[in-house]
Amino acid sequence: MTKRQLALGAFVNLPGHHVASWRDPKTEVRKITDLSYLTEIAQIAEQGKFDNLFFADVFGQPILENAHSGLKLDPVVIISALAAVTKHIGLTATLTTSYNDPFHVARKFAAIDHLSNGRAAWNVVTSANEREALLFGRDEHYAHAERYERANEFVEVVKKLWFSIDQEALIIDKESGRYYDLDKVTEVNHEGKFFKVKGTLDAPSTPQGHPVIVQAGSSEAGKELAAKTAEVIFTAWQTLEDAQKFYRDVKGRLAKYGRDPEDLKIMPGAFIIVAKTEEEAKAKHEQLNNYITPDVGLAYLSNYVGFDLSDYDFDGPIPDFEGQQRDRTNPNIRTNIVKGIVERKGLKTLRELYNNIAGARGHREIVGTPEQVADQLQEWFENEAADGFNIMPPTFPEGFKDIVELVIPELQRRGIFKTEYKGTTLRENLGLKRPVNPFIRSKITQ
Amino acid sequence: MTKRQLALGAFVNLPGHHVASWRDPKTEVRKITDLSYLTEIAQIAEQGKFDNLFFADVFGQPILENAHSGLKLDPVVIISALAAVTKHIGLTATLTTSYNDPFHVARKFAAIDHLSNGRAAWNVVTSANEREALLFGRDEHYAHAERYERANEFVEVVKKLWFSIDQEALIIDKESGRYYDLDKVTEVNHEGKFFKVKGTLDAPSTPQGHPVIVQAGSSEAGKELAAKTAEVIFTAWQTLEDAQKFYRDVKGRLAKYGRDPEDLKIMPGAFIIVAKTEEEAKAKHEQLNNYITPDVGLAYLSNYVGFDLSDYDFDGPIPDFEGQQRDRTNPNIRTNIVKGIVERKGLKTLRELYNNIAGARGHREIVGTPEQVADQLQEWFENEAADGFNIMPPTFPEGFKDIVELVIPELQRRGIFKTEYKGTTLRENLGLKRPVNPFIRSKITQ
Repeated sequence: MTKRQLALGAFVNLPGHHVASWRDPKTEVRKITDLSYLTEIAQIAEQGKFDNLFFADVFGQPILENAHSGLKLDPVVIISALAAVTKHIGLTATLTTSYNDPFHVARKFAAIDHLSNGRAAWNVVTSANEREALLFGRDEHYAHAERYERANEFVEVVKKLWFSIDQEALIIDKESGRYYDLDKVTEVNHEGKFFKVKGTLDAPSTPQGHPVIVQAGSSEAGKELAAKTAEVIFTAWQTLEDAQKFYRDVKGRLAKYGRDPEDLKIMPGAFIIVAKTEEEAKAKHEQLNNYITPDVGLAYLSNYVGFDLSDYDFDGPIPDFEGQQRDRTNPNIRTNIVKGIVERKGLKTLRELYNNIAGARGHREIVGTPEQVADQLQEWFENEAADGFNIMPPTFPEGFKDIVELVIPELQRRGIFKTEYKGTTLRENLGLKRPVNPFIRSKITQ
Repeated sequence: MTKRQLALGAFVNLPGHHVASWRDPKTEVRKITDLSYLTEIAQIAEQGKFDNLFFADVFGQPILENAHSGLKLDPVVIISALAAVTKHIGLTATLTTSYNDPFHVARKFAAIDHLSNGRAAWNVVTSANEREALLFGRDEHYAHAERYERANEFVEVVKKLWFSIDQEALIIDKESGRYYDLDKVTEVNHEGKFFKVKGTLDAPSTPQGHPVIVQAGSSEAGKELAAKTAEVIFTAWQTLEDAQKFYRDVKGRLAKYGRDPEDLKIMPGAFIIVAKTEEEAKAKHEQLNNYITPDVGLAYLSNYVGFDLSDYDFDGPIPDFEGQQRDRTNPNIRTNIVKGIVERKGLKTLRELYNNIAGARGHREIVGTPEQVADQLQEWFENEAADGFNIMPPTFPEGFKDIVELVIPELQRRGIFKTEYKGTTLRENLGLKRPVNPFIRSKITQ
């Protein structure tokens, strides 16, 4: 029997996860809108046998004179294009439930799952950003509880649409002229608090049954939604203890929805800077941090914690953010992350703080040799803290290449990461069950 | 000086434009969700030096037991994927302004224009289909005037977003740390009847300045919107006289918006069945028509004219549709098309009528030898009825291959169609001007 294997995602954020990656002489920032750049990264990921390419999404970001801010292409368009130039890797795009319609979302991911032969995943999020609301005619964003209630119903409708025309409904008998088995077509007739949807999707159920559902919520409502519907959770933890607590908490919620612990893979983010020696890795990190100018560092930190720090001295003490945020509806997850980092690392000044946040953005930061990085990943993987990781390279493609060339072989040598793709779909590669069409099943058993 | 050249689009509708194409032994209907099938078609189109691949969009279609109905993939996803496997051809997707937000639409087409290096076009439509409304929580669709008013404002907002970060705003000076020239960033601050949008797009202006804008409206409001904003019109005419009238009408409206006649290309649809002999072409057409069963023929016709014909005898007389449609807000363009066909061809029964509609769906039908087809296209092209055509093959890939192998060389021989792509963008290939960012221009001249 083979050892349990790590699930690995490559979280793509161009030109890198480090906030100052654009100033690194090796990043080609002007290429972030080029398909050739994205294709190169996808191909490196497939060489490294990554299971998944992950694209986050947030829009309406402020444009700062001295930062790479507010520039990124639509992730749905990106993964659609990458479906054509990749063969094995999963393709995850983030799409908010706050400013979309279930029909459009169901339709886009169904199409991507078909065109990629079963490699699509939807990262379900809610919009917590005031500036996103302004782009959609609202003066402020939805309150936290309402966002999650809407997300819950949204996912429910999307799943109904995905199963509205079962693949098996397609008889397509040219001779007799019969096309559909109408018993396997289930018109959606949904009337809920947020959505009223009547009709069918215009695509049959997809190669994966339906696309994989990913989520990132760590709040109480987020964890409950994940336990009910998510198949992958992307999350942010700094310490083994916190990650274990979250892992047990969420896995423990699955049974009440009739699900098994392996039906949901928990993949925390890991920001990794690797080099052959520890000194070299640390020097790379320091060099990137040196590119952060104080105005950008403070702006970045202000945005992260939701608290305006622009008038603070960056070499002065760190103020108490708790309860001070603009957005009082949002649980203080990020404030807690910051607090944890400040305490654990003994940080004193705002400059120290933003140097510790601006790379990994609150995710776990691992800087060291291939062995050191592998040790840290393995520790979480073997101690009920993670089923895998969403890897966050500091720069693309250089920092990502380093990970593929140095860390992946070390994980493979330890027998905890595959050397070849096992399945053809993302679902198969992650070891997730294929969902059954609930409408057809109930019709048959009736 | 080279002769004026035809603009040619390939209108892709799988497995073919003929309503019964799915019963043709050569069409592979199960492949309509496969990227390999779409890629094959796109590559045939590039071999034929087509300027554009055109994907229509309509959803919520009824599922009929004996018809290929209600199945198609999202066109935005399709053209995003095709951007990765094509080099020269333009990529047009249809997206309705009735059930979308300007931000999402601006963002998707900007991304496709970037990833395709300037080959994206947006076909702007309004939804006139009741069943589409039901998928978006509405009991009925918007009235005609409201739809067009909304479309007008929609396009206005999308254009503002496309120019909100000018390409030249990106300084990206790694040394000094300066990223943006904020003078070339123009935050949108739109408050209109339908939309309120504040912020910038997260993509810079695109390789074509902005994606090409296509439209298909032939009503009074449609023509006016087209004269104001469209760069290509896709339209449906049966006779030279009608096409000329439309051509002069729309071209004549451009001046009041400060535009030249060549700023808008008029491309009527042309359903083409071609073979080496006229008899062979006619036999192909008849064979396809024989695949239409009466229930499908009547259902198709009912949907086309918006009038329920299911209880009528298909070998009985053609009733008068005028003023009888469910949708009284929609001008009777299709009724007029049907009336024209009935009179011109002396049709007597509903069966004769659906056999004449179900292939070309109201577009011009050309069945004959390569010379006959070329004659008919050339006649319109040289007599102010068309700047080019949106070609509608009866089946894919077979019927399309016939056109590329037989008609294209004949048009090239006559010197009215190019033998090589001239430019790198769709705009260049169509001979359309590159739009100037109006916000930057006004800032500079202030």
